[in-house]
Amino acid sequence: MSQFEKKDLVSPRPVIAFLTDFGLGDGDVGVLKGVVAGIAPTAQLLDFTHDIAPQNVASAAWILASGYRYFPKETVFVCVVDPGVGSKRRAIALQAGSWYFVGPDNGLFTYILQEQILHNVVSLENPAYRLPQVSTTFHGRDIFAPAGAYLARGIAIQELGPPLDPATLQRIERVAPVHTGSSIDAIVVHVDNFGNLITSISLSLLTAWPVLPAARLLFPQQNVEVREIRRFFADGPLNDLPFLYGDSSGYLGVAIRNGNAARQLKIDLGAPVTFVMGTS
Amino acid sequence: MSQFEKKDLVSPRPVIAFLTDFGLGDGDVGVLKGVVAGIAPTAQLLDFTHDIAPQNVASAAWILASGYRYFPKETVFVCVVDPGVGSKRRAIALQAGSWYFVGPDNGLFTYILQEQILHNVVSLENPAYRLPQVSTTFHGRDIFAPAGAYLARGIAIQELGPPLDPATLQRIERVAPVHTGSSIDAIVVHVDNFGNLITSISLSLLTAWPVLPAARLLFPQQNVEVREIRRFFADGPLNDLPFLYGDSSGYLGVAIRNGNAARQLKIDLGAPVTFVMGTS
Amino acid sequence: MSQFEKKDLVSPRPVIAFLTDFGLGDGDVGVLKGVVAGIAPTAQLLDFTHDIAPQNVASAAWILASGYRYFPKETVFVCVVDPGVGSKRRAIALQAGSWYFVGPDNGLFTYILQEQILHNVVSLENPAYRLPQVSTTFHGRDIFAPAGAYLARGIAIQELGPPLDPATLQRIERVAPVHTGSSIDAIVVHVDNFGNLITSISLSLLTAWPVLPAARLLFPQQNVEVREIRRFFADGPLNDLPFLYGDSSGYLGVAIRNGNAARQLKIDLGAPVTFVMGTS
Repeated sequence: MSQFEKKDLVSPRPVIAFLTDFGLGDGDVGVLKGVVAGIAPTAQLLDFTHDIAPQNVASAAWILASGYRYFPKETVFVCVVDPGVGSKRRAIALQAGSWYFVGPDNGLFTYILQEQILHNVVSLENPAYRLPQVSTTFHGRDIFAPAGAYLARGIAIQELGPPLDPATLQRIERVAPVHTGSSIDAIVVHVDNFGNLITSISLSLLTAWPVLPAARLLFPQQNVEVREIRRFFADGPLNDLPFLYGDSSGYLGVAIRNGNAARQLKIDLGAPVTFVMGTS
Repeated sequence: MSQFEKKDLVSPRPVIAFLTDFGLGDGDVGVLKGVVAGIAPTAQLLDFTHDIAPQNVASAAWILASGYRYFPKETVFVCVVDPGVGSKRRAIALQAGSWYFVGPDNGLFTYILQEQILHNVVSLENPAYRLPQVSTTFHGRDIFAPAGAYLARGIAIQELGPPLDPATLQRIERVAPVHTGSSIDAIVVHVDNFGNLITSISLSLLTAWPVLPAARLLFPQQNVEVREIRRFFADGPLNDLPFLYGDSSGYLGVAIRNGNAARQLKIDLGAPVTFVMGTS
Repeated sequence: MSQFEKKDLVSPRPVIAFLTDFGLGDGDVGVLKGVVAGIAPTAQLLDFTHDIAPQNVASAAWILASGYRYFPKETVFVCVVDPGVGSKRRAIALQAGSWYFVGPDNGLFTYILQEQILHNVVSLENPAYRLPQVSTTFHGRDIFAPAGAYLARGIAIQELGPPLDPATLQRIERVAPVHTGSSIDAIVVHVDNFGNLITSISLSLLTAWPVLPAARLLFPQQNVEVREIRRFFADGPLNDLPFLYGDSSGYLGVAIRNGNAARQLKIDLGAPVTFVMGTS
């Protein structure tokens, strides 16, 4: 994860960023924005992404974590990946670090809670800041979008509902790498638009990166071994050989130059990997 | 359809919402926005959706109907699903209820005309509010985007062209459910991003919903019968059994928990359904 | 290409338009916008497209060329289709015609350089206008988005880095049609969302278009011949017969009414075509 912080840049217009698994075919994303534009008309509405794999909370949590630092301070993130919509799972808003986050309490904010100081967390129960009618299946429209819009309009987070005990917040099981001697067991946490495989191994774990004496990344299920290390894509081998690189998210990645590593190696989200330092 | 109306919230910035079947691969959506930004630079441009099934006017009309109420009053909807572009079909603008709608006269506004009071409808013939050159194949860019932008800038709708007789407007054949004794014949009007099947049966037709004595939804072509009823997705059966639920659009839907009903049941847009009240 | 120019319309809000091959599944597009919103908070951020075929510089160049004229003067185009990221390829900003363009020096701006007067071109080397940490794999976030945002905020282009000799800029090999007697050899430069095939044959080459005595377009590899000519889609033959039409981009296209020409004729981007004037 980059250490970048825009310390001196504060946006005079409130920014609301949306992260959902709605896709763009339904009009639901449009409806979220319509609701927000009615409540916070001067806000700038930005799409973070709407193409999270459907109901994949772990993937959404990782994508949120890899990018939120690049948004202006005070940005309100409206995050709706919500397989438990309508059930007893809580609807929450957090103020953490320099940002606000709104969404279901299902682990979406696991990384945020680990990386940032939590200033406030509330349960979105105040009916004054919801739509008048709340459905059982579209809380994005009825609860989360209005909450985000009111925050952007300057309503204090405490107004949205009662405070919650941070210890009770749901967290996803972290895909934390496991060290065993000179090897690290981890998984593929993201496959990007180019088919690059991003692992859960932070580059900060690999002290001399990218100057490593010798190292291998193994995909045991696919019986694939990657030994080449490159600094950027255009420097990769031209013969479809996969290589290791430092992804811009701050994690170790695998790419094939002018190719699609996920497709060519038949490796998908969640695949286990083992990083081995040394040659044998 | 929800009864929600944001009665007291009027946006000080004009809002323009786009609904097209352009997809995002072409740059055409960007061009629409470029044209609008040149004419109405202070407007807020929102994507309703650009992923309407290509040239599917009925689907576009339904998606528009399921969401327009959630946008601020005075929002201008620029709707371009236009298989007849370049032919004699008319280009129109409507002021209906609290909103403006711009697009081809091909039935896109069927639901709007049924649900809202029509204040004005004009034919977009005034060359002052088109681009200087009008192509035969991209009226979204050359006619509809400029018309929407000028409306957002405050030009009176009457300036855009001569009034039309509302009786002459095109309407799609409504997919109105047909009652026969205790059964209702209808169709699938929408398949959402999660594979949920939304039918043309309004929940308002099912008086005691979701407390029904016993009921079944049949897909005769696929020989599928759905008997389970649930209030929300996370309450659905875990064994891939499809269940009925009240979609947030206000219509009866069919879902599979943690699954994709459309794919698993092999049912698509337009499939006939029969709802039967009772057990036998 | 249309001759349209919005001569008298200048936007009071700076406009930034994004053109990338990121897709929307990664959050990378959101991150670009987050960076820009922090630097140029009053700018209007418009998506041109994010669905360029991955790393296809030629396709990106054409899509940019077909639409940039429709954006307001002073629009800053941030273009990131960048297979060479991290290598020695230069990062550049151009002021050309009435617009600004930012991106890698890899041929993306080939058509712009041919069509517009080049006022300035610089190499993006000033660290004051980059993010503090520059990765080797995501210059969109670290170099191009900040450069575009600072231009939109009013920083002079000369501040971004040293001037470059225009003669040294990379250009893609133009897909310029080749005339041989009464025939023109060209290629398919774009396949749109409807499956229409757009060729590299400008309509301005076909003097009497669409009133041609007789003409044929041949796809030699697929052994397909197209003889019908229509002014708009709804006028096309109903029997799946492909026809020629003048695409709104200003180039000769091939469509099938209510069909998908690319899929039905099995023709893709880059396919060679031969246009023959006359009947035999």
